[in-house]
Amino acid sequence: MREIENLQLNAEGKLQHFLSIEGLNKALLTEVLDTAESFADVSSQNVKKVPLLRGKTIVNLFFENSTRTRATFELAATRLSADILSMNIATSATSKGESLLDTIHNIEAMQVDMFVVRHSLSGAAHFIAQHVAPHVSVINAGDGQHEHPTQAMLDMFTIRRVKKQFPGLRVAIVGDILHSRVARSQIHALNLLGAEEVRVIAPKTLLPTDVESLGVTVYYDMAAGLKGVDVVIMLRLQKERMSSALLPSESEYFKCYGLSADKLQLAHKDAVVMHPGPINRGVEISSRVADGPQSLILQQVSNGIAVRMAVLSMTMQHRRGQV
Amino acid sequence: MREIENLQLNAEGKLQHFLSIEGLNKALLTEVLDTAESFADVSSQNVKKVPLLRGKTIVNLFFENSTRTRATFELAATRLSADILSMNIATSATSKGESLLDTIHNIEAMQVDMFVVRHSLSGAAHFIAQHVAPHVSVINAGDGQHEHPTQAMLDMFTIRRVKKQFPGLRVAIVGDILHSRVARSQIHALNLLGAEEVRVIAPKTLLPTDVESLGVTVYYDMAAGLKGVDVVIMLRLQKERMSSALLPSESEYFKCYGLSADKLQLAHKDAVVMHPGPINRGVEISSRVADGPQSLILQQVSNGIAVRMAVLSMTMQHRRGQV
Amino acid sequence: MREIENLQLNAEGKLQHFLSIEGLNKALLTEVLDTAESFADVSSQNVKKVPLLRGKTIVNLFFENSTRTRATFELAATRLSADILSMNIATSATSKGESLLDTIHNIEAMQVDMFVVRHSLSGAAHFIAQHVAPHVSVINAGDGQHEHPTQAMLDMFTIRRVKKQFPGLRVAIVGDILHSRVARSQIHALNLLGAEEVRVIAPKTLLPTDVESLGVTVYYDMAAGLKGVDVVIMLRLQKERMSSALLPSESEYFKCYGLSADKLQLAHKDAVVMHPGPINRGVEISSRVADGPQSLILQQVSNGIAVRMAVLSMTMQHRRGQV
Repeated sequence: MREIENLQLNAEGKLQHFLSIEGLNKALLTEVLDTAESFADVSSQNVKKVPLLRGKTIVNLFFENSTRTRATFELAATRLSADILSMNIATSATSKGESLLDTIHNIEAMQVDMFVVRHSLSGAAHFIAQHVAPHVSVINAGDGQHEHPTQAMLDMFTIRRVKKQFPGLRVAIVGDILHSRVARSQIHALNLLGAEEVRVIAPKTLLPTDVESLGVTVYYDMAAGLKGVDVVIMLRLQKERMSSALLPSESEYFKCYGLSADKLQLAHKDAVVMHPGPINRGVEISSRVADGPQSLILQQVSNGIAVRMAVLSMTMQHRRGQV
Repeated sequence: MREIENLQLNAEGKLQHFLSIEGLNKALLTEVLDTAESFADVSSQNVKKVPLLRGKTIVNLFFENSTRTRATFELAATRLSADILSMNIATSATSKGESLLDTIHNIEAMQVDMFVVRHSLSGAAHFIAQHVAPHVSVINAGDGQHEHPTQAMLDMFTIRRVKKQFPGLRVAIVGDILHSRVARSQIHALNLLGAEEVRVIAPKTLLPTDVESLGVTVYYDMAAGLKGVDVVIMLRLQKERMSSALLPSESEYFKCYGLSADKLQLAHKDAVVMHPGPINRGVEISSRVADGPQSLILQQVSNGIAVRMAVLSMTMQHRRGQV
Repeated sequence: MREIENLQLNAEGKLQHFLSIEGLNKALLTEVLDTAESFADVSSQNVKKVPLLRGKTIVNLFFENSTRTRATFELAATRLSADILSMNIATSATSKGESLLDTIHNIEAMQVDMFVVRHSLSGAAHFIAQHVAPHVSVINAGDGQHEHPTQAMLDMFTIRRVKKQFPGLRVAIVGDILHSRVARSQIHALNLLGAEEVRVIAPKTLLPTDVESLGVTVYYDMAAGLKGVDVVIMLRLQKERMSSALLPSESEYFKCYGLSADKLQLAHKDAVVMHPGPINRGVEISSRVADGPQSLILQQVSNGIAVRMAVLSMTMQHRRGQV
């Protein structure tokens, strides 16, 4: 833990990289949320741009395809006036047999300022951060089944905007916890920010064996788990994981772990519903709930721009060797 | 018709979306042409840029590949100083099973200002325009076999620059009318702008059954159809459609419906030749004609930038909720 | 030769295109190096940008995939404030059967200022330069097995920064000379700039038959060839060419023509090691050498930005018809 903490922070304890929620503290997460608040208006202004990162080069290094995450990072960087170099690596240099490290060092030698990394291997962003020059920042845009920290922070931002504070909040995370980097990051963030209770609701087969050690209460039954919660976070079910859930069909999954309007009534009457997207309608969530008045799903997307602007500008400012 | 008209126009009758020529009127088309005229010099200036759309986000949403159309929209947006997000959707989010509408609403939530949409389904751009927020504009960059309105407007712009006005003009459109969204848009535009006669020249098998109802004269014989016309617009023949034309080969097609220098002599001596590109040399047009003094084919491409700049800036300005 | 010279230079003898080192002269190469020197600081400034090419449109026209070269040209153009249009042509227009020339003329008609061309056919960039309008510049980013002149110039820049001047220098180029456009450009550049001796070290099967006529000394034995040289340039071995080298395996190739720390000791004690990348560790170079104190491999990448900024700005300035 200590090691990871050091890796993300510079000598003054400020965010130099943004790799995982684990290893950060409440003050830093709050600083991200407050900074994001200051950027929230930029995207609704007539000119959606601030000159903060003009002349900086941000490399979108996606080893795994993700239209949505790539787009929000690209827009966040554009609205900070940075220059963006998009590299889809699956189809390029490494196909010539070059090692990941050689690829990184080569792009770094082009005097870039930041890598936004998406990779199918857990730990890829940490590995890269360990090897880049001190003046380069690394942002984890999702690594394997490990963490997706900017997604978790946009979720926290969305919750805070509606619920004002975390103490007293009961949050349920529902679905495929086992394979979800988003869930892992959310659990760490909710606990650091002082949520009263974090529940996970899932079939046993979709839960990590040591899940309680993350600081959550486990529910196998959705009705019991939803009771009285203030926030319901639904996770995407990868259809190829249906069988490992030992569930015979999508409709069967929906019956047990999907969020219908009926089940939502078990939560607190002011409960809000979230989902990292893209949603599978009728599998993990009904259209009535997804498009209903308690859903914050599209606000999450909007907030993602402001939160990513915050993370990009904070880490850029705190790179070692920067004044 | 009424419905489409309302969809494209805001409460003041100004262009909010640009979806089809059908449903527009002469005054609006003329406004597009006049606005394009004001942008025609930008691309030949030393600094090819005006700050009109600085800080606006335009999304190039191409569900169908088109290098050329994508490039001209991208350059038009760049020269208006807008930020562009390019999304090639065939290979991305919808492959995760997300519905078109969820994709649109998600990108819209990133606070974008405009969608430029290319789709293989007729009506896709209208469908999207019906569902976006009031402050978002939609431009149809080609939908199925329906319309390709910016292509038609750049053709009108090209004709007006040379022929000064539409009344008195005889225009022949030659080739695969049946499958051509370009032809459909051109016919509507020429009729709205007051061309004296619009002829279509094609084998019966490449004509829609109700084609006269669009306001055209039908010719099956090219010699007869070209006689005395002021403008000849050749259409691209998709090679896979050769067989449905009941024509045994490309050379046979060229003999019947290709434009040779000889056949062009049947037209008015000042006749001009156009083609939306990319051309099939020796199939629908001879190289001598394509590269000859009467050809406006490359001017069409240049004019496409100015016309798209006009459409982007006009619709952006007239979004509902804009001052 | 005369013809090529004329093609690259405008009436005043200034660089209008940058197609090959062959046909240029010492003064022009020196001007490129001096101009690059003036850009070397831009990429390490806080704002990595100069407004020199603001409002210019540079088209990256890659008919052959190359992440690294595309990225350095894109960054060079961005840091000169130009607008970049990236076109990966393998998957687009020409797949509709359009000829290369029609593709070029069409993009040119979008009023672009420059083509950066990568093509698998030798002579492609020259062919394009012969056919573009006088106000358009063409940069060769690698054509078949012919030349890769910006790579050679970044190598010359890297050598000059360390060794100060070329007279007196002995340079060995090691590996697959036969298929290497990089080697061909390097040999011309080293000879024009006055290097004392250019050696090529390779098995007979990987040497062009007329290689001495390029102005090099041939060595089949690496130990003999490396003796006393000041610069060692290793070439990448395309693995599919291993068999044509009549060498049974990668380890066999490394034993004969790979650069180990031991073999490097045969060179001058201040010798530097270069490689155009991406490197095959353990095939043409050992990790100890590649990552060692004599290696300039990553400096080559950094210098590539400054050299490409120089070439882009010089050719842009000297297009015919420019004031």
